[in-house]
Amino acid sequence: MRQVYRCPLRWADMDALGHVNNVRYVDYLQEARVDLLRLHGRSALGEELAEGIVVVQHDIEFLAPLAYRIEPVTIETWVTEIRAATFTLAYEIFDEDGGGRRVYSRATTRLSPFVFAAERPRRLTADEKELLGRFLEEETADD
Amino acid sequence: MRQVYRCPLRWADMDALGHVNNVRYVDYLQEARVDLLRLHGRSALGEELAEGIVVVQHDIEFLAPLAYRIEPVTIETWVTEIRAATFTLAYEIFDEDGGGRRVYSRATTRLSPFVFAAERPRRLTADEKELLGRFLEEETADD
Amino acid sequence: MRQVYRCPLRWADMDALGHVNNVRYVDYLQEARVDLLRLHGRSALGEELAEGIVVVQHDIEFLAPLAYRIEPVTIETWVTEIRAATFTLAYEIFDEDGGGRRVYSRATTRLSPFVFAAERPRRLTADEKELLGRFLEEETADD
Amino acid sequence: MRQVYRCPLRWADMDALGHVNNVRYVDYLQEARVDLLRLHGRSALGEELAEGIVVVQHDIEFLAPLAYRIEPVTIETWVTEIRAATFTLAYEIFDEDGGGRRVYSRATTRLSPFVFAAERPRRLTADEKELLGRFLEEETADD
Repeated sequence: MRQVYRCPLRWADMDALGHVNNVRYVDYLQEARVDLLRLHGRSALGEELAEGIVVVQHDIEFLAPLAYRIEPVTIETWVTEIRAATFTLAYEIFDEDGGGRRVYSRATTRLSPFVFAAERPRRLTADEKELLGRFLEEETADD
Repeated sequence: MRQVYRCPLRWADMDALGHVNNVRYVDYLQEARVDLLRLHGRSALGEELAEGIVVVQHDIEFLAPLAYRIEPVTIETWVTEIRAATFTLAYEIFDEDGGGRRVYSRATTRLSPFVFAAERPRRLTADEKELLGRFLEEETADD
Repeated sequence: MRQVYRCPLRWADMDALGHVNNVRYVDYLQEARVDLLRLHGRSALGEELAEGIVVVQHDIEFLAPLAYRIEPVTIETWVTEIRAATFTLAYEIFDEDGGGRRVYSRATTRLSPFVFAAERPRRLTADEKELLGRFLEEETADD
Repeated sequence: MRQVYRCPLRWADMDALGHVNNVRYVDYLQEARVDLLRLHGRSALGEELAEGIVVVQHDIEFLAPLAYRIEPVTIETWVTEIRAATFTLAYEIFDEDGGGRRVYSRATTRLSPFVFAAERPRRLTADEKELLGRFLEEETADD
């Protein structure tokens, strides 16, 4: 299952070159991530997983320039790996374009649950693993 | 040779969790990159390389949380690869910490010179390769 | 007539104190302004008024703290003054709250059309005045 | 007495029109304000005044466009009014320009100490008033 998030752009996301600045894509990924974790994590798990995570690694490919427009861009988010104390999200930022997709970016983020009071990572609970498992998609060999 | 950039933080770089937000690190990398390309590229190469590049890929590892403070954080930037139409920068964000370094992030960015008027990438010129070559550092096996 | 804009918040708009930072309100006003000028100015007036304006003055009152949530906040925007070379927008940022409004901010922005190529302000055209006139609302004495 | 803050610009502060975006000036004012309140408030007053304030009103005039450059811009900040539960800062953003000043913006911010735990404003303490009094400058009639 993939979470679909319709991400609104802001005019100020454009840089002096007239395109959405690369840093703003990372903002969009954050919004998609918060949307997935807050919306789905809220009732079952409280706000713990939504609020108490840290980013361990981003890998972000930029495939096409994105121009500002009023319509939101679409972001699909899903899970590619669940381990003891980390999990990995994958994202695709795109527009539907006739029969296909115009893909602006593909990215992954490795995350870790984190206890801010103690400033240390922690293991995923069984409930959290079950929640994330609903979004799990094995990566195919040709990916 | 590594370019050393002293990157000022802004109070607003902190997020609701009280640390510098992961997206702001990507802003810091951009400032370090602009610093390297504008400062060194200006006289010899005009503003072309500084202004006319696009980010092809970011890979960013987050190693330690960074708290807001008045003092800038240090970013070293260097070149790890020069190809026909792309080059790769590596960065380390850190504080000097007694004899060693407290490293907050290690990252790489693959970039391509880009002709914005024509919306297409272009090849690096010989002059640009020479400039980037001054910052070239082979990656060691254990990196 | 007032333009109604549903402004999405971003999680990163919160600052270390856990509320939407005061600077982000100014971003929201910018989005509402771009929405009004682009949407309504496009067909009749080209992109000139939407793109070629500069902010001369902001006056922004903060009336209640705004917490992050998934739902957009509402912004009404209208015109309070049209002069030869400037015009003034007023805004209210609020939530509908039962029978009334919970108002987060009231603000005004004085703007001037600007010729960027020549770096100088210019006068409003008759067409632009007519467009802005549709949003004109006289300020009442007790405002 | 005026606090002098050397405010670094970021390349990403420019918008699609190639100048520093109006919203970024408000970021600069925030940095100047944090600089004044943290630097001077720290030892004597703890972090209370620096962290526990809310913005009640901004009034910001934009006098000249500001282009990105590596050198910081200068911001002077001082106090124009101290009342029971609010105080007002004034700022000037400028470059020294031969014998004179090139002024980009003049602004004021009215602030209130705020108890975040209770979500309510509070009165200034005598110590805080004394600290702010060091930066007090009466506004002249022709201002």
